[in-house]
Amino acid sequence: MAVVSDIPDIVIGRLPIYLRALTQLSEQGHEITSSHELGQRLGISSAQIRKDLSHFGEFGKQGTGYQISHLQAQLKQILQVDREWPMVVIGAGDLGRAIAHYGGFVQRGFRVVAIFDNAPSKIGTASQDLKVLDTKQLKSVIQERSVKIAVIAVPAQFAQQVCDALVEAGVVAVLNYAPITLSVPDSVHVQYIDPVTDLQRMTYYLE
Amino acid sequence: MAVVSDIPDIVIGRLPIYLRALTQLSEQGHEITSSHELGQRLGISSAQIRKDLSHFGEFGKQGTGYQISHLQAQLKQILQVDREWPMVVIGAGDLGRAIAHYGGFVQRGFRVVAIFDNAPSKIGTASQDLKVLDTKQLKSVIQERSVKIAVIAVPAQFAQQVCDALVEAGVVAVLNYAPITLSVPDSVHVQYIDPVTDLQRMTYYLE
Repeated sequence: MAVVSDIPDIVIGRLPIYLRALTQLSEQGHEITSSHELGQRLGISSAQIRKDLSHFGEFGKQGTGYQISHLQAQLKQILQVDREWPMVVIGAGDLGRAIAHYGGFVQRGFRVVAIFDNAPSKIGTASQDLKVLDTKQLKSVIQERSVKIAVIAVPAQFAQQVCDALVEAGVVAVLNYAPITLSVPDSVHVQYIDPVTDLQRMTYYLE
Repeated sequence: MAVVSDIPDIVIGRLPIYLRALTQLSEQGHEITSSHELGQRLGISSAQIRKDLSHFGEFGKQGTGYQISHLQAQLKQILQVDREWPMVVIGAGDLGRAIAHYGGFVQRGFRVVAIFDNAPSKIGTASQDLKVLDTKQLKSVIQERSVKIAVIAVPAQFAQQVCDALVEAGVVAVLNYAPITLSVPDSVHVQYIDPVTDLQRMTYYLE
């Protein structure tokens, strides 16, 4: 594998999209694809796809395309999702519960192992096969289960303090659904999901 | 306002982040800010912020910073969220309902006016103050209410056909939660929310 620090983050950001498209092609019965076919599906140029993949080695032969199962396996290894990462969800409101129940994590490398809230009315209630835990137990659960990844689904005004507690407990990757920018040490990764910023990016273009 | 086609989409993508930070500063009682302060909050360089904003005119004076309420109003106008956009949500599962109930849309320019599903067990049930409608009514509701924006929250295998129906009905901006890349005419905007691609982008870096 190439030295990771050399590769632009924007390239890394496209790899999960390639992996998702390959999985879809495989499910549709395809065994071989090409940078041209992938590019057409994704609205990305085939030259870009070839250049992105070339950072990690040679995956296809000129003229014969990519063997889908091989490229899938390689991308899973590069992205380190050839294993299952345990995750915790903080916030057991509508959103947190929808995330905890989401069926799409397991086959793509992730499993929600606990959901937390600080509201007495929610603690102890069942969220499908997970019981909502008290946030007081956050640190012990994270440490016992060696959890590195957390999903924040609390209101904006509580998100920073939840994030601080997660980082202190050992979390190094945060997926934040609260509509604020979090402050974290350089060693901690954060990705943001805010549907409103995505919508506003589109309304700019509407007539 | 500047001619829109000159401005890179990546710049447009940062404007909602700036607007969100300004709103937060305003809620915390601030009246003036600077590209330096904004940059520190957002992890973006102050030079980048000044350059991004300069596409749209002069918003601050050298040495005195930005008047928050003025810059907020200007960004809302540029992003066209100085109004309320009606939206429809397709899919009344856990995720679709969580989106339909989300309280963060209205003050930021959007309102969910209808939620649709094709499952007889869901049609007619209440999702807070919205009743789940039959997808057969999709076109008539979209046209009667002049809806331009839709949120897709259906399983991946149905997302393309739902998208086609939305586009045919007049939708020009789609926020897609289904984990597939959609095929749309050039005139239609799509943004994607897939938590797994965000998570996989982070696991690449974990040790």
